Amino acid sequence: MAGYASGEQPDNELTIKLNTNENPYPPSPQVSNVLSQIKPESLRRYPPATAQKFRQLAAELHGLDLKNVIATRGGDELLRLVITTFVDPGEKIGMTDPTYSLYSVLAQIQDCPIVNAPLLADWTLPEEFAQSMNDQKVRLTFLVNPHAPTGALMPIDQISKLASKLNSILLLDEAYIDFVDHHYQTAQLVKEHDNLIILRTLSKGYSLAGLRFGYGLADQSLIAPMLHKTRDSYNLDFISQRVAEAAIADQDHVRANAKKVILERDRLRAELHVLGIYCADSQANFLLATIPDTIKFSAAELYQKLKDRHVLVRYFNAQRLDNKLRVSIGTGEENDQLLSTLVDILKQS
Amino acid sequence: MAGYASGEQPDNELTIKLNTNENPYPPSPQVSNVLSQIKPESLRRYPPATAQKFRQLAAELHGLDLKNVIATRGGDELLRLVITTFVDPGEKIGMTDPTYSLYSVLAQIQDCPIVNAPLLADWTLPEEFAQSMNDQKVRLTFLVNPHAPTGALMPIDQISKLASKLNSILLLDEAYIDFVDHHYQTAQLVKEHDNLIILRTLSKGYSLAGLRFGYGLADQSLIAPMLHKTRDSYNLDFISQRVAEAAIADQDHVRANAKKVILERDRLRAELHVLGIYCADSQANFLLATIPDTIKFSAAELYQKLKDRHVLVRYFNAQRLDNKLRVSIGTGEENDQLLSTLVDILKQS
Repeated sequence: MAGYASGEQPDNELTIKLNTNENPYPPSPQVSNVLSQIKPESLRRYPPATAQKFRQLAAELHGLDLKNVIATRGGDELLRLVITTFVDPGEKIGMTDPTYSLYSVLAQIQDCPIVNAPLLADWTLPEEFAQSMNDQKVRLTFLVNPHAPTGALMPIDQISKLASKLNSILLLDEAYIDFVDHHYQTAQLVKEHDNLIILRTLSKGYSLAGLRFGYGLADQSLIAPMLHKTRDSYNLDFISQRVAEAAIADQDHVRANAKKVILERDRLRAELHVLGIYCADSQANFLLATIPDTIKFSAAELYQKLKDRHVLVRYFNAQRLDNKLRVSIGTGEENDQLLSTLVDILKQS
Repeated sequence: MAGYASGEQPDNELTIKLNTNENPYPPSPQVSNVLSQIKPESLRRYPPATAQKFRQLAAELHGLDLKNVIATRGGDELLRLVITTFVDPGEKIGMTDPTYSLYSVLAQIQDCPIVNAPLLADWTLPEEFAQSMNDQKVRLTFLVNPHAPTGALMPIDQISKLASKLNSILLLDEAYIDFVDHHYQTAQLVKEHDNLIILRTLSKGYSLAGLRFGYGLADQSLIAPMLHKTRDSYNLDFISQRVAEAAIADQDHVRANAKKVILERDRLRAELHVLGIYCADSQANFLLATIPDTIKFSAAELYQKLKDRHVLVRYFNAQRLDNKLRVSIGTGEENDQLLSTLVDILKQS
């Protein structure tokens, strides 16, 4: 099997990086304060083992209890913990097609067969999704919402119904939830559904992909075995706990950044439309752009031509995605440069 | 099964913490410099995925190649990766008795039966150790050297012979290697033995337990599957990579701290001997002290009496260890306070 392929890193400083959905704006100014206050002496000792202070802040933010929260090294660690804690090798893991590519890699590492359910043409779930997963005795179902790589958002009541119908654990990956343009809170669902685990990360909405910090919300019957048994004893270092505490406490900053990203997302979508490139409605910090037949370059060619001109976007060499490009929302300047570069390239056709 | 029990944390600032083998001296002053130079903006992006710069520094330090090094979130992550990458559930994992208690916890998480080999009375390996592991078809053998919780050091040629004889992978845990009082380098052994993985950590010798940073050295056939397949995609955050690079580059600081610890270790051992408390020869930053029958308190009672007086040491409620206390080496002042507190307690008998 092949491991997970990390996002391409640019080879020079000039490159505009719109390929791995990082937040274009800096993290909370509180992060600076925290970093300047850390005494090297405090690194001498083991860090708080379960990141209790961060977990308390997350619990308060979501109206839940400390026991409903596990803090993890990015969302990645939570995904791995959910699989290794609740799914034995040989048991099935369900997911949609397409979805975040890490899920299938992690399933293969655990030797778990994958049950794929193709999304409908508008990237929504097929009606029979839960029944199909149950029929195939799926033990764990992965769902990313807003969806990657399309940005489509599922209504909350649909998630609730899905959790009710599924016999499996439902891992709801909310990596991009901070970019939804209206009030949208699912955390209380974990009080109703003891098979639901909500994944959150500080990588996107909090502009802290480099920090590797995320968390899970769930009924304590799901949190406890991960928190007290399968998790590495000290999974989160002292510095990142301090930084994460400061970041999650500064919700105003998260909302202000998200608002800027949303405005740019909607502008970029409109401008791409003018160029004949249509993007599905996205509630995330990226757009999935369909390259129409009227453009003489394929998506793969366009990806390469953009890269040659120092604009990095994401091309998926996969069925249903091979005429599309995923573009992370950059700053206004970055998006302008993407657009003007595209115009230059299209002039050649 | 029970999870790993993390070291007891003191409930107040007055407590002298000699129970979890942390380094009593601060980390390299370079750590401060690095922390002050980190720009929050740099946390916006994903960190280098394989910590290449740190791995290059570690490779140079040990006279090995980049491909022989994996960087991990503390030694813990390496231990887990070795098990999940190379041992299937149901396959056997071998270890000595006693040894570091995390090994058996990790084996249980992977559903692997444990093969225990009792150490001899002087805490050395029995002659037939390798043969016994081979006979029982052990797939992975854990060995901690200097040994925990005794501090006993195994000769390098014995390790080499063991690696040759064993059919299993040999994980050599060198968490405490920086406190050996003479030249002692095993890294070159990985060139001769493609079944040997050496574990190193920055938690002890580098005074960075709070950072969660370690690494593994091995033949590239063992490193590659962990580095490229089973490791979490971004296991090490940006800040800790920068700090670890600065720390491993400052070997003078590590050696200077180790020298102070060694002097204190030998002094404390001599002073305890004067009190009638004998410690095995230790090459680590702790002593395993045997509480003799001539003292009216048991080891468990002494542990509690010390704790009541704000001195925390480690008591193992385990066969062969229940008349012993493990004492981490503190600063001169901390060791003095341990000694004077002990004298006070013993006066009562």
